[in-house]
Amino acid sequence: MTFTLSKPASQPAVSKSSSTEYASLKQEVKVTFNYDVHFTRDLFNPDNPLLAQVLLATGEGTKKAIAFVDSGLPQQTEILAQIQAYSKCHSYALNLKPGSTLIAGGEAAKNNPQLVENLQKLISDAELCRHSYVIAVGGGAMLDLVGYAAATAHRGIRLIRVPTTVLGQCDSGVGVKNGINAFGKKNFLGTFAPPTLVLNDANFLTTLDDRNWRSGIAEAVKVALIKDAAFFDFIANHTEALVNRDLDTMQQIVYRCAKLHLDHIAGGDPFEMGSSRPLDFGHWAAHRIEYLSNYRLYHGEAVAIGICLDSTYSYLSGLITKQELNEILNLFKALGFRLYDAELSSHFTSPEHSRSLFRGLSEFQEHLGGELTLMLLATIGQGLEVHQVDLDKYRLAIMMLKEADL
Amino acid sequence: MTFTLSKPASQPAVSKSSSTEYASLKQEVKVTFNYDVHFTRDLFNPDNPLLAQVLLATGEGTKKAIAFVDSGLPQQTEILAQIQAYSKCHSYALNLKPGSTLIAGGEAAKNNPQLVENLQKLISDAELCRHSYVIAVGGGAMLDLVGYAAATAHRGIRLIRVPTTVLGQCDSGVGVKNGINAFGKKNFLGTFAPPTLVLNDANFLTTLDDRNWRSGIAEAVKVALIKDAAFFDFIANHTEALVNRDLDTMQQIVYRCAKLHLDHIAGGDPFEMGSSRPLDFGHWAAHRIEYLSNYRLYHGEAVAIGICLDSTYSYLSGLITKQELNEILNLFKALGFRLYDAELSSHFTSPEHSRSLFRGLSEFQEHLGGELTLMLLATIGQGLEVHQVDLDKYRLAIMMLKEADL
Repeated sequence: MTFTLSKPASQPAVSKSSSTEYASLKQEVKVTFNYDVHFTRDLFNPDNPLLAQVLLATGEGTKKAIAFVDSGLPQQTEILAQIQAYSKCHSYALNLKPGSTLIAGGEAAKNNPQLVENLQKLISDAELCRHSYVIAVGGGAMLDLVGYAAATAHRGIRLIRVPTTVLGQCDSGVGVKNGINAFGKKNFLGTFAPPTLVLNDANFLTTLDDRNWRSGIAEAVKVALIKDAAFFDFIANHTEALVNRDLDTMQQIVYRCAKLHLDHIAGGDPFEMGSSRPLDFGHWAAHRIEYLSNYRLYHGEAVAIGICLDSTYSYLSGLITKQELNEILNLFKALGFRLYDAELSSHFTSPEHSRSLFRGLSEFQEHLGGELTLMLLATIGQGLEVHQVDLDKYRLAIMMLKEADL
Repeated sequence: MTFTLSKPASQPAVSKSSSTEYASLKQEVKVTFNYDVHFTRDLFNPDNPLLAQVLLATGEGTKKAIAFVDSGLPQQTEILAQIQAYSKCHSYALNLKPGSTLIAGGEAAKNNPQLVENLQKLISDAELCRHSYVIAVGGGAMLDLVGYAAATAHRGIRLIRVPTTVLGQCDSGVGVKNGINAFGKKNFLGTFAPPTLVLNDANFLTTLDDRNWRSGIAEAVKVALIKDAAFFDFIANHTEALVNRDLDTMQQIVYRCAKLHLDHIAGGDPFEMGSSRPLDFGHWAAHRIEYLSNYRLYHGEAVAIGICLDSTYSYLSGLITKQELNEILNLFKALGFRLYDAELSSHFTSPEHSRSLFRGLSEFQEHLGGELTLMLLATIGQGLEVHQVDLDKYRLAIMMLKEADL
């Protein structure tokens, strides 16, 4: 029997000649990821059937899982015990493996690569298969860390995120990224890996201290500013309720912000293959001053300042009006945010200095790739991308913020 | 201005009551990856325009890149120098950054997590952005290692694979996986991350020693057995040419095998979310005896034995005929493969023993997740999945192989 290789007619027949050419093969790989975001309270109370239900919905039989709880949570030990009790009560759905434990959270945890290896080893020791679950309960940094370990073990174990902060519930926790810091660069290592489930338990928000309660709202303001003027007005009209820690108001904000994020991810470029990243409005400066402040500033606090900076720059560039700028700055003030931090002025010592704010621009470009692409504001509720910046205008914006913060 | 949250009509209006419920949000994320596989010779000869052309095709301007060359290659230093010369000659397309270097390859490299960190640091130091390129030139293990580092730096730098082995050019190098070994488990850490380009240079195949030349053919036989009877016959009719190292015959096999792999990936479950992995025919035992032999067996040699084992088991299960089995075993013999290795008999000491072959079945299931799913043969050219195994029949198959190998 003979076998003839299929080749384009224009190619010569296979021969002993070294000039044989083979047509290039074009490959297209399409992958679809589905995940649900559920909103509940008292998730790990055995009387709450949600977790057992969603596990069973993924297929018959008991699901193996390991749970990691952020050691920075108040009542962390109780939460872990509660999950273990839940597993016993709902053993038809959930088989919690030994090795479930407390894990360091906060930005510092993302600077320690050993923690990733520890997590990967716990997953290996628990003999979890790729269809098993890692349940991660914690703040945004801890979810990033655990998510990275889960995404790389067996090339991806199913991840259930249970974000405990405003930021986690409305922003990073519903997204498709994970990662840790390395070589002095924020989120230098990580993957794009959608979770299998996100379970937002509002009760966790009541345990936050005031700084963490407030901090996450910055991401809601961000997405409102670039996408949804009505949502911006809603936040502006509810600053008092938020300052007074009204949980229902916060739940509305979390829900709407999560939905805007999810819609953006699904409709855009989820794995960020292009150069545009609209949701990073205000973030080039935020990441930089977070780092420069040695994480004295919380992420949301840095984001608020970054948004104020890019909004002021948008005003100076003739994009938004003075009145719009004031609305933005006043909203952050009313929520209790600072508009300025001394780290913003680090460039005044020297623009070449390793502590310069503007190094954040090149790091931002390096991380995303391609052309520098910054999101500014065309108006409240609508972003506008630019590819060039005027550093003198940024210097002026910084001075204006310093004034406004007084 | 008031803002009302959109909720299903059946949900109560937002109130201060803690019973407020929010509808779950359903997310669907679709991601499309495209990559071309090109076939050429003398890729890094400045007179060969292919690399410069494909880089320019991804967008205007010079592309930043770092090159890693497998230190196990003959003339590795020359290859690196050639790439540097190519970059100088085609600087309008390629800007090779300092840090390009030789990298350990071979299975042992996949056991050393420090190598991943070294690679990530080289990528960081070169200030590569996410749209820059990592060019990896080497065997399958080295490509797995470098691919993992590239996939996690900035959550994924573009990867150009230049596989130098038969195995790499026709199988792993055109696929969507990367990874390293950890905690005693093969490929325990890694990601699914399609390359941006695969450049198969046939000249590299002429530099392989006989074991490596032969070894990669095992994957071609594998994919022929489960998918393409005509391709099986082609290989069977060309064993002499292959043993005599006829490059044109090998190129045909590499091309056809690569195409079958690419078609399978595109048409199936590229990120292996289900439990089925047809392309792993023969691999549960192969991975295990590779490990048990402390990598004395090359991957392809272990795969040949694994295929012979699962083919014999298919015969004993009444699936393929004795004649078909003999055709398969004779093909491997004619190519110079062994059909049996003493590691197969490790279970005779004790089935519970840590050196048992059959531990490979549970490790295989753990890695893939879900129900045990093994590919057997219905006939030459057609696989058949089963979910249960009879270990006694496997023991018999092992004894038959030991006989047949004499």
